[in-house]
Amino acid sequence: MSDFVIDWERERRTGVGEAVLCEWKSAAQIESVVAGASSRLLLTRLAEEKHAALSLECRGALDFDPISRTAVLGGPGDGSPLVGAGVVCAGTSDLPVAREAARTLAFHGFAAPIVADVGVAGLWRLMQRIEEIRGLDVVIAVAGMEGALFSVLAGLVEAPIVAVPTSVGYGTSAGGAAALSSALSSCAPGVVTVNIDNGFGAACAAIKMLRRRR
Amino acid sequence: MSDFVIDWERERRTGVGEAVLCEWKSAAQIESVVAGASSRLLLTRLAEEKHAALSLECRGALDFDPISRTAVLGGPGDGSPLVGAGVVCAGTSDLPVAREAARTLAFHGFAAPIVADVGVAGLWRLMQRIEEIRGLDVVIAVAGMEGALFSVLAGLVEAPIVAVPTSVGYGTSAGGAAALSSALSSCAPGVVTVNIDNGFGAACAAIKMLRRRR
Amino acid sequence: MSDFVIDWERERRTGVGEAVLCEWKSAAQIESVVAGASSRLLLTRLAEEKHAALSLECRGALDFDPISRTAVLGGPGDGSPLVGAGVVCAGTSDLPVAREAARTLAFHGFAAPIVADVGVAGLWRLMQRIEEIRGLDVVIAVAGMEGALFSVLAGLVEAPIVAVPTSVGYGTSAGGAAALSSALSSCAPGVVTVNIDNGFGAACAAIKMLRRRR
Amino acid sequence: MSDFVIDWERERRTGVGEAVLCEWKSAAQIESVVAGASSRLLLTRLAEEKHAALSLECRGALDFDPISRTAVLGGPGDGSPLVGAGVVCAGTSDLPVAREAARTLAFHGFAAPIVADVGVAGLWRLMQRIEEIRGLDVVIAVAGMEGALFSVLAGLVEAPIVAVPTSVGYGTSAGGAAALSSALSSCAPGVVTVNIDNGFGAACAAIKMLRRRR
Amino acid sequence: MSDFVIDWERERRTGVGEAVLCEWKSAAQIESVVAGASSRLLLTRLAEEKHAALSLECRGALDFDPISRTAVLGGPGDGSPLVGAGVVCAGTSDLPVAREAARTLAFHGFAAPIVADVGVAGLWRLMQRIEEIRGLDVVIAVAGMEGALFSVLAGLVEAPIVAVPTSVGYGTSAGGAAALSSALSSCAPGVVTVNIDNGFGAACAAIKMLRRRR
Amino acid sequence: MSDFVIDWERERRTGVGEAVLCEWKSAAQIESVVAGASSRLLLTRLAEEKHAALSLECRGALDFDPISRTAVLGGPGDGSPLVGAGVVCAGTSDLPVAREAARTLAFHGFAAPIVADVGVAGLWRLMQRIEEIRGLDVVIAVAGMEGALFSVLAGLVEAPIVAVPTSVGYGTSAGGAAALSSALSSCAPGVVTVNIDNGFGAACAAIKMLRRRR
Amino acid sequence: MSDFVIDWERERRTGVGEAVLCEWKSAAQIESVVAGASSRLLLTRLAEEKHAALSLECRGALDFDPISRTAVLGGPGDGSPLVGAGVVCAGTSDLPVAREAARTLAFHGFAAPIVADVGVAGLWRLMQRIEEIRGLDVVIAVAGMEGALFSVLAGLVEAPIVAVPTSVGYGTSAGGAAALSSALSSCAPGVVTVNIDNGFGAACAAIKMLRRRR
Amino acid sequence: MSDFVIDWERERRTGVGEAVLCEWKSAAQIESVVAGASSRLLLTRLAEEKHAALSLECRGALDFDPISRTAVLGGPGDGSPLVGAGVVCAGTSDLPVAREAARTLAFHGFAAPIVADVGVAGLWRLMQRIEEIRGLDVVIAVAGMEGALFSVLAGLVEAPIVAVPTSVGYGTSAGGAAALSSALSSCAPGVVTVNIDNGFGAACAAIKMLRRRR
Repeated sequence: MSDFVIDWERERRTGVGEAVLCEWKSAAQIESVVAGASSRLLLTRLAEEKHAALSLECRGALDFDPISRTAVLGGPGDGSPLVGAGVVCAGTSDLPVAREAARTLAFHGFAAPIVADVGVAGLWRLMQRIEEIRGLDVVIAVAGMEGALFSVLAGLVEAPIVAVPTSVGYGTSAGGAAALSSALSSCAPGVVTVNIDNGFGAACAAIKMLRRRR
Repeated sequence: MSDFVIDWERERRTGVGEAVLCEWKSAAQIESVVAGASSRLLLTRLAEEKHAALSLECRGALDFDPISRTAVLGGPGDGSPLVGAGVVCAGTSDLPVAREAARTLAFHGFAAPIVADVGVAGLWRLMQRIEEIRGLDVVIAVAGMEGALFSVLAGLVEAPIVAVPTSVGYGTSAGGAAALSSALSSCAPGVVTVNIDNGFGAACAAIKMLRRRR
Repeated sequence: MSDFVIDWERERRTGVGEAVLCEWKSAAQIESVVAGASSRLLLTRLAEEKHAALSLECRGALDFDPISRTAVLGGPGDGSPLVGAGVVCAGTSDLPVAREAARTLAFHGFAAPIVADVGVAGLWRLMQRIEEIRGLDVVIAVAGMEGALFSVLAGLVEAPIVAVPTSVGYGTSAGGAAALSSALSSCAPGVVTVNIDNGFGAACAAIKMLRRRR
Repeated sequence: MSDFVIDWERERRTGVGEAVLCEWKSAAQIESVVAGASSRLLLTRLAEEKHAALSLECRGALDFDPISRTAVLGGPGDGSPLVGAGVVCAGTSDLPVAREAARTLAFHGFAAPIVADVGVAGLWRLMQRIEEIRGLDVVIAVAGMEGALFSVLAGLVEAPIVAVPTSVGYGTSAGGAAALSSALSSCAPGVVTVNIDNGFGAACAAIKMLRRRR
Repeated sequence: MSDFVIDWERERRTGVGEAVLCEWKSAAQIESVVAGASSRLLLTRLAEEKHAALSLECRGALDFDPISRTAVLGGPGDGSPLVGAGVVCAGTSDLPVAREAARTLAFHGFAAPIVADVGVAGLWRLMQRIEEIRGLDVVIAVAGMEGALFSVLAGLVEAPIVAVPTSVGYGTSAGGAAALSSALSSCAPGVVTVNIDNGFGAACAAIKMLRRRR
Repeated sequence: MSDFVIDWERERRTGVGEAVLCEWKSAAQIESVVAGASSRLLLTRLAEEKHAALSLECRGALDFDPISRTAVLGGPGDGSPLVGAGVVCAGTSDLPVAREAARTLAFHGFAAPIVADVGVAGLWRLMQRIEEIRGLDVVIAVAGMEGALFSVLAGLVEAPIVAVPTSVGYGTSAGGAAALSSALSSCAPGVVTVNIDNGFGAACAAIKMLRRRR
Repeated sequence: MSDFVIDWERERRTGVGEAVLCEWKSAAQIESVVAGASSRLLLTRLAEEKHAALSLECRGALDFDPISRTAVLGGPGDGSPLVGAGVVCAGTSDLPVAREAARTLAFHGFAAPIVADVGVAGLWRLMQRIEEIRGLDVVIAVAGMEGALFSVLAGLVEAPIVAVPTSVGYGTSAGGAAALSSALSSCAPGVVTVNIDNGFGAACAAIKMLRRRR
Repeated sequence: MSDFVIDWERERRTGVGEAVLCEWKSAAQIESVVAGASSRLLLTRLAEEKHAALSLECRGALDFDPISRTAVLGGPGDGSPLVGAGVVCAGTSDLPVAREAARTLAFHGFAAPIVADVGVAGLWRLMQRIEEIRGLDVVIAVAGMEGALFSVLAGLVEAPIVAVPTSVGYGTSAGGAAALSSALSSCAPGVVTVNIDNGFGAACAAIKMLRRRR
């Protein structure tokens, strides 16, 4: 499609490839991009209804995950998965964002276990799994509401914490603002953050960190 | 002073007496209130410079604490202090607010130990003192920045947590907004909150709870 | 369900049990939690449509109240109801939140009368029932719009006021922001607040207060 | 001064004369306006330090009130004062704004009693003076913090309530935002509002109402 | 309905009767109020779909206007309409709010002409009708977007201007915030404002002004 | 100074030269830039106190205007001034920003008359000078408070309106937010805006427009 | 339709004609305007569903573009298109707004090429087309998310940049706020901005600039 | 000092040591911490005036940098500096924050060159140094105003970008909000951010990344 200029060189230049953000694109635009793709491609924020509106052929070419709203064109990558990243997730409501991060990592060749439902209201759940988390080189922490998980984690592990505030919450935390400001204001140094619900961006940052690890 | 109508019946009616909020009053207005007082009186938000501008006589009558900006007219109350309340404080920067709460409790006859510098960046500091905190009937929790202390505490103790967000912070937490939204959005049920820096109000709420305990 | 780690010890540790916040969970996730429950369970923010999407068996096990969007698994608790809490409600539009509070109290064994439609635009309605309210040990006050009820109540009774701002309002009070800031800025000391529409949280705080009353 | 074009016809056209808002004008600009004035003139938001920086001659010509930061050039108006307006004020901290309203009314020939310190934390204070207030044709209500006074008053009297939220408050009510949103969201119909701390504007509106009362 | 306590004395006490705000009430609650009404009644914010959900009998009793979302129970009032109020409206998109104001005035016995589509982008449209507007005793001005109409009008007429910002707008004026801040910040004194889209409240204020005109 | 890299090619590339924004630079940094300058230079937001802190030699080289906080190094440009731009200013409090715009235009060789004190509260003042304004090719409109001037002007003239909202105002218009949202939400098409108090930026935009006029 | 007063003189007076903003108008209102039109007319923000609700006759008279939500009554204008304006667009998601601008320009007789998908994440895409852009007299730049395109462009070309922030984004950039604040805060002088998604307004400003170019 | 509990184990546990945030601490508190320190210590946000208020002895022990407001107790660390981090800075006004980052890195044993004044208004300045930047393993990017630098950089290099928005700006970017939202909304994946002006936090995150690089 003439209006869409894929930046195929992006991965070589920046370490992560261009993904197709589907939220504001029509089904026709998405089909056009998929049809013209010359290599593997990641699609994000592809709502279930929009996926259903794609042609059968297009859908057949995509590995779609409705929970994380991601799709992959071109199958799994080559080689055995790289390690070092992990996703820690406060509540089950945060799982869609956690999975977007894990799927983005997988697309780029990195395995990423999800440690789920370890919010701070019951600290013992986090403590039960803290050694597993301490083994990671980058921790993606996903939490909504007040986002206390970010600070607690940063006080316990050596790896950098990439916070992903989620839009899970209501009233003053509606839309994720409370969790975002918690990530930014953490009393524990070493927390960095990405935009609300941006599991994709957190994974890209983790990949960049891991790529420079060699 | 004719413009100031002290609500002397307030303590009998509501359990806590009227205090004089000095921040927007002139030194002359404050002196007038003190001179006309017919019983013990608590003054809050009395800045050190405004206190210094009061007459020698007026200052002589007041027990002034510059850190918490509180002053008491009429000396300590009668009887041995009542117990059940305590103040838990995330950082040393939060101490002025913690002391405002403790001094308000003391004015009303309640002893209130301050457990200081137990922020979540080093969880072991909180854990070292958790049994002491578990013995309280009301916990006033004072924290700025991201206010993660509120949720962590609420997941660990039975007593209600009265959160006091403080204005300690900068950038997105400047003025206390991040800590306030954390208190309101806590994933751990049983946290209630008062306005930013309102140690006085938290103490009044604690007194009301303890008064109804009998 | 493997992603959901119920904190069954929470009630013993904190005085209130873990509830299942249904708003961001799928019907499948909810069914899984209900099926795996080993004791009584409270579900909140369960919209009527999501309830309708549950299996017949699951629905049969739940006592569902569509107005408050709460459901209880496991029937009423044992023993005669404990007293001391009450819910005061400004307008009929605030009733869903008031009922969420009352149902949460009931789940934990506390009776809680609702005093409805006593907003300050017609003060006589509140005054007619003030003696009844003065007999309570904790007052949960539920109001939207400008939330003037919180301050008026706090000036009239000895019990602590747990304010629940509601999202009833439009324009500048849309979403509950005006009522929330009224609760936080009350000129009458002793008001504490929870998040907008958080009847559940207010009830949990009240339970913690009443539990420590012995 | 050539850059300042006084709208001398404004009073004839709109019922209220042009006033000189001094906050963003230099002492030199103010002197120039005063020197060139061909009739009586009201100056608002004239801080005490800026007044002190005016020439002796200029100051001699002005009747200055430091509390309300207003000054009048040209002495009291002719005739006996008109009645019908009154100013009701929640706390002593709100008096500067209340006086700005009363002085503006006086400049235009209207007497306006101030009913001070009748905030809703002690309702009996308001009730003691409610008959006096019911006799007014326009009520200017001045309150900071949560501004509950606006709704309570509007539920008790027939006259329109012109709310003036004040910047008295801290935390979430800092700068007057909470009181302003209370005025706008009042559950009691008939409240109108002006900008925060705008006692002058409230008085102008009251004058316009009274002028059309013929 | 037991939860709804109509304040039948409100009109005698405050000059305007209680109206039923339908937005957050169920059809069942509305029917119950209508069925129990012992005198004329005004219903506001009654959406067309909710009106359609009422019983045939209930609908038959109501004079419903879908544009303004208002309904009147009990027919037109007695006597010939009182004069003095008028509604000035910036654009056709603001008409629903303008009609809510006019219908509220009519319910209380006041005729109120609507001067429509006189926004300031074409000043000549306003100037063509300015003499008609100058004859009014209260001007209700209804405008969305930037709300420049409020200031322009206030500089041209003697009557008080009751501004009603509307939610017509997008981007920074979405929801009415820009028009509201214009009304509050007007450089022309004598503008008072009500909440966004609150045509009902503006009419109530106008009625209170006109009632005290005698 | 090694940390400061002047973009000397900017004027050739973009039509306007790089200016030195002094607000966050130390006096030492400013002196260093001035000493190293190889051609004419404009300095903006140079507060009077910071100017006073510069060396005598540096001050001697600068043509400083304290009202607009601008300074010019290198004297007036060559040739007779170009025409087409003008600055229209709502109130005398807005003059500092209007002068920043006019001084920036002059630095680049454009004459720009200032039409002052023509705010909409007295429309006749604007109408008296409207023909003069209609002759301009670009109108820079400077206004604080509610910024109604932007829309009124845009409805009257053919030239584009570059709005400069100013920080003149208090309460809801404090800092210029109300005027800015008015500029963005104008009902009259053809208004573009720059940041609050950014007279410099408005002038740069005007210069770019005039440069492409040939 | 009597409530709608078309300002037919607007184009002669201001350089751009009145357009019909359809978003808050009913289909009936729109039909009425179209039926009564005495010359060519532009309709904006006409959603596809609302267009479908118009009568067949009305739709037949309109040239409708669903992507930009614009419709033109009266066919293309006379004469060959004028040149000088162009639209530069960061991503394919911004195309609807870019097309609204281009269609508005076309309605007024100006050709405007769209340079699409040149966001700064891959600078080479912009650089490939920079000479084409440098030839324009006015650049309309359309971008959502963080809006970095505005500053980068303004540092590269001589023409004025009219920024159109779009509502493409989520989390902190939801609704366009981040792109808008980028446009206003640009470090590159000469950027002016219009409201979020206001392609129409940007085109009107460009037309005014080009009209004064003669 | 008994209220201050240094978390001496933090570096071993989390990779970065506890620093003393001086902004809300009194000179007495700071002296007490310094006197009690048993190892090297970093102090941040130590304003020049507060530093001057410390005792001569205390000042003698500290290596103080007034520009970055940092002080180091205990001299430079052992060993030759580690490499891999660098600080890229948009303007000279952002240097204090850039230096806070560089000094924090140095305290922990990492050399970090500062690439200054490469803001996007003159892209060639950045391009001149891009190869040097491409050699880094972590890039700390410091920018105020609209923060376009973050996205441009992220599109050009492989290393992760840790954005530090600064409070340099006015109007809509006052306090750093615009730069922060740009960092969060970047169209170029791989940008993570810390709080406004938090050079310390960015350095801590970089250290954590580099520590896991082995």
